[in-house]
Amino acid sequence: MSIIVLGTVALDSVKTPHGERRRMLGGSAAHFAMSCRLFTDVHLVAIVGEDFPERHVSFLRRKGIILTSLIRSRGETFRWSGEYKGDLNTALTLSTQLGVLSAFRPVIREEQRNIKHIFLANVDPQIQRGLLKRMHSPQLVGLDSMNYWIKHKRRALVGLLKEVDIYVANDQEARSLSGEHNLLKAARCLKAFGPKMVLIKKGEHGVLFYAPGVIFSLPAYPTHKVVDPTGAGDTFAGGFMGYLAKVGKVNTQSIRKAIAYGTVAASFNVEGFGLEQTARLTAKDLEARLARFKKYISLEGEA
Amino acid sequence: MSIIVLGTVALDSVKTPHGERRRMLGGSAAHFAMSCRLFTDVHLVAIVGEDFPERHVSFLRRKGIILTSLIRSRGETFRWSGEYKGDLNTALTLSTQLGVLSAFRPVIREEQRNIKHIFLANVDPQIQRGLLKRMHSPQLVGLDSMNYWIKHKRRALVGLLKEVDIYVANDQEARSLSGEHNLLKAARCLKAFGPKMVLIKKGEHGVLFYAPGVIFSLPAYPTHKVVDPTGAGDTFAGGFMGYLAKVGKVNTQSIRKAIAYGTVAASFNVEGFGLEQTARLTAKDLEARLARFKKYISLEGEA
Repeated sequence: MSIIVLGTVALDSVKTPHGERRRMLGGSAAHFAMSCRLFTDVHLVAIVGEDFPERHVSFLRRKGIILTSLIRSRGETFRWSGEYKGDLNTALTLSTQLGVLSAFRPVIREEQRNIKHIFLANVDPQIQRGLLKRMHSPQLVGLDSMNYWIKHKRRALVGLLKEVDIYVANDQEARSLSGEHNLLKAARCLKAFGPKMVLIKKGEHGVLFYAPGVIFSLPAYPTHKVVDPTGAGDTFAGGFMGYLAKVGKVNTQSIRKAIAYGTVAASFNVEGFGLEQTARLTAKDLEARLARFKKYISLEGEA
Repeated sequence: MSIIVLGTVALDSVKTPHGERRRMLGGSAAHFAMSCRLFTDVHLVAIVGEDFPERHVSFLRRKGIILTSLIRSRGETFRWSGEYKGDLNTALTLSTQLGVLSAFRPVIREEQRNIKHIFLANVDPQIQRGLLKRMHSPQLVGLDSMNYWIKHKRRALVGLLKEVDIYVANDQEARSLSGEHNLLKAARCLKAFGPKMVLIKKGEHGVLFYAPGVIFSLPAYPTHKVVDPTGAGDTFAGGFMGYLAKVGKVNTQSIRKAIAYGTVAASFNVEGFGLEQTARLTAKDLEARLARFKKYISLEGEA
């Protein structure tokens, strides 16, 4: 089954202990799509400005991502600039220029309204709601957000949570929105806002999944090569949602496997700047690393 | 097989968002022994002062811990006082009074020198080495330390690492001793110092195990009730070493199971102040929680 993802396509400038890149292709929808494409057709809904290099468009197209709803508008592309220090777990945002994003009104085609798997990656919750309302028969809706919206559009975000199946948040966001430090308490609290399931991403510490009667905790894939974590959460979500769309059923078994795929996809993402590694990635690479990951986390090692 | 543990028996004063306790029974050897006793006989090697309440001695004895090498000496018992805030992941040490610990020279009986499973919990590395030298035929030696010794007795500690099988460190210690932020790199670097295996404890984020050709990553047991994390690492080590002593063989399979037992034991520890929860713990409780934990981390959920 196809997926439609709403989010940002951005020009990211990033500095990490491993180097620096300026105006790389980035953004939540781009990172999501780059792992999700390994599982299913991905329709990308986003906006870019006049300054957006045509080569980035052809690159996304070559990767098989469906761009009929990537709008180009007058103005500048959304830009984010950040720096990672030390253990690369937290980004220090140096600047954010919304550009065309501030007037973004998603435009989708009539036939796209029938897509059943929907991911609302990080943009203004009102834009997220706008897209969701236009969809004819959502079957599985995932939502990501960020601290900015938790702070400035809390009511819109909380309202939207009632209409989604899976709320994907990082640990800081989960703590901030729930007011709970303990992540299991936070997950329960967020669940009470309305989503059927809550997925808390803990960066290098893995993921905690919560639904009534189901707790699932998975460490991150242990990698020694963390170059740039930007987009890891979206890459995770892309693998996670992509796998669920591919198998077409949502149960505790498929969710666990989906989380494992997302985890492994995210581990490739952090091993290079921007989309460097995930753009190269094949389904075979993903399977190979998943097999290794299973060994790393199995309680039943070889004797 | 029996275990001998060298470490501290302390009077801990702790403040957390859940309350405050003054001069509780604590210390690395006491926490270690409290979980380890569920697997095997534990010989405790430590020192206390004249002020140490007799009721604590009888309490430890009632728990089946062998106290023939618990020395009582002139002076005050080692005291630690600390506070946890926010997510309770890091202790703020308010004061440390070494007391009798500063002149501690372990005394063990001739027959104890034949014990093959040895855990050198956190004390001065020179004291740790002193005990190790006295042992006749060590089969499995685990070692824990702390930032204070990494800073002030680095050479003694690094020298000692050549003589142990398993170095158990928390993430901060691992980073500080190795100079590496990335924990997988840190583990490899620490391995190069000499131990056969490295176990990095990440608090609420679980454990990373490293040995040549073997990586094992396990999340913590998800608990919503974190009351006081003091001693969680030692409780983990007690369960870990205890299980290995009980099964009497060390391979990747037994190590994975040992790590799971340690993890579950530690989860009880954090749910109460000091030894409150682990003192009550039975092997049956441990097994029941281990079974639940396996569900929480299994990739193969029920359909």
